Amino acid sequence: MLELIVGIDIGGTSTKFGLVDTTGKVRIHSSIATENPNIEGYITELAHAVRQAKDSLDEPVEFLGIGVGAPNANYKKGTIEDAPNLPWQGTIPLASLLEDEFNVSVKLTNDANAAAMGEMMFGGAKGMQDFIAITLGTGLGSGFVANGQLIQGHDGHAGELGHIAYKIGGGRLCKCGKKGCLETYVSATGLKRTVYKLLADHHMDSELKRYSFDDLNTKMVADAANNGDIVAKEAFEYTGKVLGAKLADAVGHTSPEAIFIMGGLAKAGDLIFKPTIKHFEKNLLNVYQGKIKILPSELDSTHTPIIGAASLILEDIENGKSVPV
Amino acid sequence: MLELIVGIDIGGTSTKFGLVDTTGKVRIHSSIATENPNIEGYITELAHAVRQAKDSLDEPVEFLGIGVGAPNANYKKGTIEDAPNLPWQGTIPLASLLEDEFNVSVKLTNDANAAAMGEMMFGGAKGMQDFIAITLGTGLGSGFVANGQLIQGHDGHAGELGHIAYKIGGGRLCKCGKKGCLETYVSATGLKRTVYKLLADHHMDSELKRYSFDDLNTKMVADAANNGDIVAKEAFEYTGKVLGAKLADAVGHTSPEAIFIMGGLAKAGDLIFKPTIKHFEKNLLNVYQGKIKILPSELDSTHTPIIGAASLILEDIENGKSVPV
Repeated sequence: MLELIVGIDIGGTSTKFGLVDTTGKVRIHSSIATENPNIEGYITELAHAVRQAKDSLDEPVEFLGIGVGAPNANYKKGTIEDAPNLPWQGTIPLASLLEDEFNVSVKLTNDANAAAMGEMMFGGAKGMQDFIAITLGTGLGSGFVANGQLIQGHDGHAGELGHIAYKIGGGRLCKCGKKGCLETYVSATGLKRTVYKLLADHHMDSELKRYSFDDLNTKMVADAANNGDIVAKEAFEYTGKVLGAKLADAVGHTSPEAIFIMGGLAKAGDLIFKPTIKHFEKNLLNVYQGKIKILPSELDSTHTPIIGAASLILEDIENGKSVPV
Repeated sequence: MLELIVGIDIGGTSTKFGLVDTTGKVRIHSSIATENPNIEGYITELAHAVRQAKDSLDEPVEFLGIGVGAPNANYKKGTIEDAPNLPWQGTIPLASLLEDEFNVSVKLTNDANAAAMGEMMFGGAKGMQDFIAITLGTGLGSGFVANGQLIQGHDGHAGELGHIAYKIGGGRLCKCGKKGCLETYVSATGLKRTVYKLLADHHMDSELKRYSFDDLNTKMVADAANNGDIVAKEAFEYTGKVLGAKLADAVGHTSPEAIFIMGGLAKAGDLIFKPTIKHFEKNLLNVYQGKIKILPSELDSTHTPIIGAASLILEDIENGKSVPV
């Protein structure tokens, strides 16, 4: 009997899932649209797709559990709460709905926490007791591990670095309603806003003048920067300056061994890592300087969220905590 | 046989210690000057004073261990490293020196971490899994507890909120060499700097004009504020504004149940707590608003550092980790 964990990554557009073995290998993966406004209907569709994937494997499979990464997930309660980009309103008891369907343990956390778990179980953070994972997508997510454990926090909402202040009480308006939040500067969207700010404030030639805000993406800015476009280069420099400074602050909280940066913006490589590391070191207290690594993820980026979600269950199994429901 | 823990609080001027029972009660306390530049000589003096205190009790005593709170303490190594306000240079192996002298376990951490432990064992954080302790003295110290454990961090230097940036790359010069550090605004010294800044920038009448920078202390500013002095009131308001904003950021890291504020500046009561709470709530992400308590310490402030230091040993005993050396 092949023992597998279901890793599920719920995004605003699609729900990706994979069946992951205990070595972290994704044996099969697939997806469904995240569009059914009826949560029971969505669970039925998801369960159907998961069972289809299971049946397509050559050998008989036993599920050890289900791990889910989702926005606004509450680990302690197993719920998704008021997620603005998902089709369900209010508090959704996702863990219990999936437990009823599959009769195995279900663990739920936000996508950045799941990424941190994946990095600890199978990536560059293997063996580390204290580290931070930063995911740079549309927004900025973060997961903290201290003393070898994920920090979920009192209410399951730890690791919201996207909404700490780069500019206190001022700066760019965030969709959370506050101003100056870190993710309005450091994320795929933040990078675009910086490009537009630079184009507004200066009159340098730039190939980025060709693109509408809606069309512009991180890869276009990265390609332009690699072609020597001064606006694109400056946009990455500024993004790294902001990220480096705020990561130096994060170190003052939990003193990690390393900080892993992943997600779309991290794929820009040196363009984002170099300025981030420079400004990180510049803002660090002397006892930390030169000691803390800023690294790309070592996970296969296609499956990071799925492996991370599955790691929630694998960690419980390793610690002897897993109990079938 | 009475079982006691030695709690030691090493400060720049004096070393206070107490013999603490397993309920957190200080049975006897005393102090020596922290002045002997020879560390072996200092240990001999301290050991003599501790034994004198022990002998003055009516019943025979067994020491269960020694807990020490000290600036620049490294919990993982049991050392004090380059503490600018102590008479010893370089790295001092304090834990092993005391172990050799007393033949019991010695644990060492910085004073704010010790305060957090004391709050968890015997104060308002009893039963809490996730909280932060902030000590406001000459500087600003912090101790983080997550998942019921003190966060020491990779290198034993977690919880340095005194040196996170209120103003990134600018602002007041800090004795650490950086600019804009939180403790240059929020601490007894920070409050004095704010008073002097207000007196420099405005021309309001203020009784604080009578005092030199050297003479001015928190109590004088608090008394003036309570008498309606506009500069003193504004200085507290500004201090709370800065502290509230940065504590809201700290919540985005570890999502605590409560934040305990202790030390000299905390004794100003509403003068500091009211503006701190107001600006804290204003800067919090919506998922945290109205849920996180900002509270004064529930420990007897005279003995907080001693009880906190002793708690390092008591926690080990409770967890069955204590092993005589």
